[in-house]
Amino acid sequence: MKLEAFLNPKSIAVIGASRETEKVGHRILRNLVDSGFQGRLYPINPKAAEILGRKCYGSVREVPGNVDLAVIAVPAQIVPIVAEECGMSGVRGVTVISAGFSETGGDGTQLERELVAICRKYNMRMQGPNCLGIVNAGNFMNASFAAANPLPGSISFISQSGALGSTILNWAFQNDIGFASFISLGNEADLEAADFVEALAEDEMTRVIGLYIEGVKNGERFINVAEEVTRKKPVIALKAGTTDVGIRAVSSHTGSLAGSDIAFSAAFKKVNILRASTLEELFHLVLAFGAQPIPKGKNVLVITNGGGPGILAADACEKMNLGLPALEFELMEKLRNALPPHASIHNPVDLLGDADENRYGFALEVALQSGKVDGVIVILTPQAMTPADKVADIVVEAKKRFPDKPLLAVFMGLDDDSYPIKTLLKNNIPNYVFPESVAYVFGAMYDYSLILGSPWVDVSKILEADDEEIKEVLAEARKDGRVNLTIEESIKVAKACRIRLPHAMVARNRKEAAEIAQTIGYPVVMKIVSPDILHKTDLGGVILNVNIRKEVERNYELILRKIRMAMPEARILGILIQQMVPLGKEVIVGAVRDPQFGPLMMFGLGGIYVNFLRDVSYRLCPVTKSEAREMVEETKAYALLRGVRGEPPSDINSVVDVILRVSQTMTRFKEIVEMEINPLRVYGEGNGYSTVDIRMTISK
Amino acid sequence: MKLEAFLNPKSIAVIGASRETEKVGHRILRNLVDSGFQGRLYPINPKAAEILGRKCYGSVREVPGNVDLAVIAVPAQIVPIVAEECGMSGVRGVTVISAGFSETGGDGTQLERELVAICRKYNMRMQGPNCLGIVNAGNFMNASFAAANPLPGSISFISQSGALGSTILNWAFQNDIGFASFISLGNEADLEAADFVEALAEDEMTRVIGLYIEGVKNGERFINVAEEVTRKKPVIALKAGTTDVGIRAVSSHTGSLAGSDIAFSAAFKKVNILRASTLEELFHLVLAFGAQPIPKGKNVLVITNGGGPGILAADACEKMNLGLPALEFELMEKLRNALPPHASIHNPVDLLGDADENRYGFALEVALQSGKVDGVIVILTPQAMTPADKVADIVVEAKKRFPDKPLLAVFMGLDDDSYPIKTLLKNNIPNYVFPESVAYVFGAMYDYSLILGSPWVDVSKILEADDEEIKEVLAEARKDGRVNLTIEESIKVAKACRIRLPHAMVARNRKEAAEIAQTIGYPVVMKIVSPDILHKTDLGGVILNVNIRKEVERNYELILRKIRMAMPEARILGILIQQMVPLGKEVIVGAVRDPQFGPLMMFGLGGIYVNFLRDVSYRLCPVTKSEAREMVEETKAYALLRGVRGEPPSDINSVVDVILRVSQTMTRFKEIVEMEINPLRVYGEGNGYSTVDIRMTISK
Repeated sequence: MKLEAFLNPKSIAVIGASRETEKVGHRILRNLVDSGFQGRLYPINPKAAEILGRKCYGSVREVPGNVDLAVIAVPAQIVPIVAEECGMSGVRGVTVISAGFSETGGDGTQLERELVAICRKYNMRMQGPNCLGIVNAGNFMNASFAAANPLPGSISFISQSGALGSTILNWAFQNDIGFASFISLGNEADLEAADFVEALAEDEMTRVIGLYIEGVKNGERFINVAEEVTRKKPVIALKAGTTDVGIRAVSSHTGSLAGSDIAFSAAFKKVNILRASTLEELFHLVLAFGAQPIPKGKNVLVITNGGGPGILAADACEKMNLGLPALEFELMEKLRNALPPHASIHNPVDLLGDADENRYGFALEVALQSGKVDGVIVILTPQAMTPADKVADIVVEAKKRFPDKPLLAVFMGLDDDSYPIKTLLKNNIPNYVFPESVAYVFGAMYDYSLILGSPWVDVSKILEADDEEIKEVLAEARKDGRVNLTIEESIKVAKACRIRLPHAMVARNRKEAAEIAQTIGYPVVMKIVSPDILHKTDLGGVILNVNIRKEVERNYELILRKIRMAMPEARILGILIQQMVPLGKEVIVGAVRDPQFGPLMMFGLGGIYVNFLRDVSYRLCPVTKSEAREMVEETKAYALLRGVRGEPPSDINSVVDVILRVSQTMTRFKEIVEMEINPLRVYGEGNGYSTVDIRMTISK
Repeated sequence: MKLEAFLNPKSIAVIGASRETEKVGHRILRNLVDSGFQGRLYPINPKAAEILGRKCYGSVREVPGNVDLAVIAVPAQIVPIVAEECGMSGVRGVTVISAGFSETGGDGTQLERELVAICRKYNMRMQGPNCLGIVNAGNFMNASFAAANPLPGSISFISQSGALGSTILNWAFQNDIGFASFISLGNEADLEAADFVEALAEDEMTRVIGLYIEGVKNGERFINVAEEVTRKKPVIALKAGTTDVGIRAVSSHTGSLAGSDIAFSAAFKKVNILRASTLEELFHLVLAFGAQPIPKGKNVLVITNGGGPGILAADACEKMNLGLPALEFELMEKLRNALPPHASIHNPVDLLGDADENRYGFALEVALQSGKVDGVIVILTPQAMTPADKVADIVVEAKKRFPDKPLLAVFMGLDDDSYPIKTLLKNNIPNYVFPESVAYVFGAMYDYSLILGSPWVDVSKILEADDEEIKEVLAEARKDGRVNLTIEESIKVAKACRIRLPHAMVARNRKEAAEIAQTIGYPVVMKIVSPDILHKTDLGGVILNVNIRKEVERNYELILRKIRMAMPEARILGILIQQMVPLGKEVIVGAVRDPQFGPLMMFGLGGIYVNFLRDVSYRLCPVTKSEAREMVEETKAYALLRGVRGEPPSDINSVVDVILRVSQTMTRFKEIVEMEINPLRVYGEGNGYSTVDIRMTISK
């Protein structure tokens, strides 16, 4: 097992173990004792002989046996000294609880660097510093200073916030929810989220990994790890700092660089991490994934003793795009015979306000048997005639006989400590307070079933491209210290990527313009070429549909005059003479480089509409063919490309091809910062596209 | 007070009072006794002498005194007989608990009609049938068969679902949440949601009205009542049956007609009802509105002892468009001096993991004093050093000294029964489990503050229109039994509404076409006129930019030939010769008549984009000027009209004018079912618009 020293140590030293009960060092030792840790436990405290009945040592070097994990809770200044001793003693891992490192800036950052250097020197891994500790309930090990000691269970949780971690442990403890592992990441000076995700993938107790993150240090590693792990078990992430204000708070909080929310969303999508949008959703999801099987399809049957909550559940299922099928005819007849005449045997199945446990039992039996139903939501509202205790028992029984179908409960208006809720939970049937929550949860479970079932696409097909040519163009621009490529350079790169372009050349004078137009063939478009002009059309820098030589020459002067009047300082490199291409559906294909996750593809509605409609989709590069197709299908532009009002469909395959080529280029050439084709004019099926305009920037 | 017989009766008869404890009739009597009802209480049961120590009567006619309210819980068949007796005895109101009426269809519907007739005859009002009863905690009256007896408080709740009602009462009871009134509507054969909303507006105990509805019987009355009430106190509605499946379930459930979700949203918006999208949101909102003052602005300060939850709250506030201001410089300095150096004095204010009650107290004091802060969110995560009990006391103290600023709590990871949570709640500080929920709640409270502050617009300004002309056109079409108006008729109506149109006339032959074109002036557009052709352009039925007489004549024949080939059966009424209008920004202005709420205005991006972008906004008619403006501003089309990429802005005022004119026409002429101008071409500021196409349908 990876990170065995942290997750499954045979021996732990608590450095800074204290006799004073309110001290963190005392708390950690007590948690280890209370949790029933089976390995050897060494409190380290030069001033004490024993604490909590355990013999103390003056330093880790005095410990007689091997120490796998040292939990360090001493003042920050002393941590490097203690770590050095750990290294010399052959300690395999250190969990540094102490605060006062990079999160405080200045000297703290320097101290953290020293600490990392010591760990590297001794090939010793480090969790933290500035963290809450680590819990592995399967191993009866609570090496944290959290107030609560969770029961063993199937949920593992990794948190970049200690406060959130302690909240989650408390919540689990309050509600008898079992945990496999809990890891507080702290400053991640050495071990990062990805390291623990990777280790927990191999942990048999862990059925689901919950993740609270504010930022990622090494995006590429995070992606590579998550891509593998999500194929084995679900990973649910709550990403904080999604808005501008949030991001500000992050950077003043942990000093970690919060990536743009769009890049995170794209990364999560790429590696199949399910994203919770609130802490509550995170709780709801880990609970279900930890306890229930993954559904085989999207069809849910709702059973209820109250119409209103049944409708709320149905509405919410519909919003999650789940199916609400009717039962098979025979099963419906069975139900009809067993239930009173006014009961509804459709979906939701309404057992009526006076339903007893037998009606519930019968409906559950039928629903779990049905081949049309992939999962069941059972709702109970408090009614005088409905014995919630007995219904809970019946639900548990049904679950035992049909363990392979997800079964989620909404027993409403009951206390968390009541018999029904406790009974359901104990038997791996999570109960939700609100009908809408359970629909959301089922929707996420269905999404994960699709992930498990989707083919594993390892590498994208390599597309033909003239990489040498691209390299040359980029090198030339860099040599000149230019960040924006000229239109000619952009065209060269696009051609080298085998992206089709209209014939075009830049004319430096009137005569050249006429000659180029002659070569290309009429009609042509004329566009000003200037590194200083962004919106050429607005300044009169573009003239369409030029049909004869004389016009070309006249327009050449006309454009120059207009531009010189509008922007006297603009550098003018000439006028582009471009083949006039037919009208078509206008889309945009672009890419930017994210500092954490690398190149990010964008697709959407193009032309002037991109600016205000923001009808765009994103994916991390390299984009696979099916991802490229999804990108198109996610946007409203897709409806336009399929054909509005009975128009023939556009050539979507050729759009996908352009996305793949841009993606490959961005992936191969790290110096390209941005690439944008807008508009890309798409024609009817089989007729391809034209790139009307292309723009590229590179790094300095 | 309205509906005094129901909300504040001096005497109650329970007809069908039973000695058997599991019977509904027993339960109601016991609830009345247990709740401490102070008025006279008459159990009616011909077979019993006394029940629960109260003297029984054989029939309501035998009761010695007046009976204000009779609660009826006898089999459906007997209800009309009992109601007749109530009428004869001068009973003022009946609450019919019994089921078996219109909700079961067939005979039940007939029985309900009889029952209503009896009530009308005696001028007696009825709640139900098929309901849970009524609770007025202020009056110590629980005339329901709910299992729980709520404490007196400030929340009133009206429910179309009995099951949901009992759930909510249980929830309130579990969590010590006080209720003013609870009303179960049942089938609403007589009294409807609007009647109770109206009555509760005058109830001094009620600070907020929660509403669960699936449909509304009388849309107009609902709107008129709600419009008044929401100016006095907030009304929060949860509308079920929002999706197609939901609506199906509604119609099989209560038989009420679920209106389209869009019309409901527009109705809620018009009358300032706040819409909860889940049951959880409804709970969260009534809790806050019931306990807290309305904020004076949108600026929130977050105080926390844990970074992560603080960031989550900040993110969520940002998403709700709330402000997160920094404190005044002096207050920030005060905080800096009082808090440890690593604490964050920005917003969120991070008191750090070892914060005690004094740090909380200090930060609260400063925040509540600050003129820049309109409300405070105080977050507490479980930490060894943070005494939650003492912090709760400090929060309560601060609240007492600054009662006018909303203060919401997020004490995390604690049990509902714990001292801090109970203490906060008892002192009108609702606690929320998750930081995101509290941001949502604050956002809704701020929205309501805007409602209270907005000017009361009573009637829209009357716009000039030739109503006689419209009446004539509509009468003519109805006489012919036509549902679709011809283009000429539509143009007449639009002109009578003073909507500007390009010059246009229908030509019946080639010669006429040429003459009309001459009159209008070149260039012209030619369009086929046929009641059978929806998409004229697709069939070649439209030719733009015709410049000379010869072309007009040639195109006349050309269009006819094309249409006859494409649709040989299409009736052709001629060809419209229309002034060719300049290009502009294309929007759509339309209206449809909703069966429950009357005419519904629509505005959005026009032309071919309307079909796939669905960038539209809605309002109920009559639309006020500011509503019309809001309609425009809510869409993405607004960005287009303001000017994309530095274009000059379009004439938004003239769009508002068209919306108002269509709204007025739809309001005045109930026979118009649909009216659509698409596209409406909008020009630069001051230059108005052109209505390129207009279409109208009327009722049969």
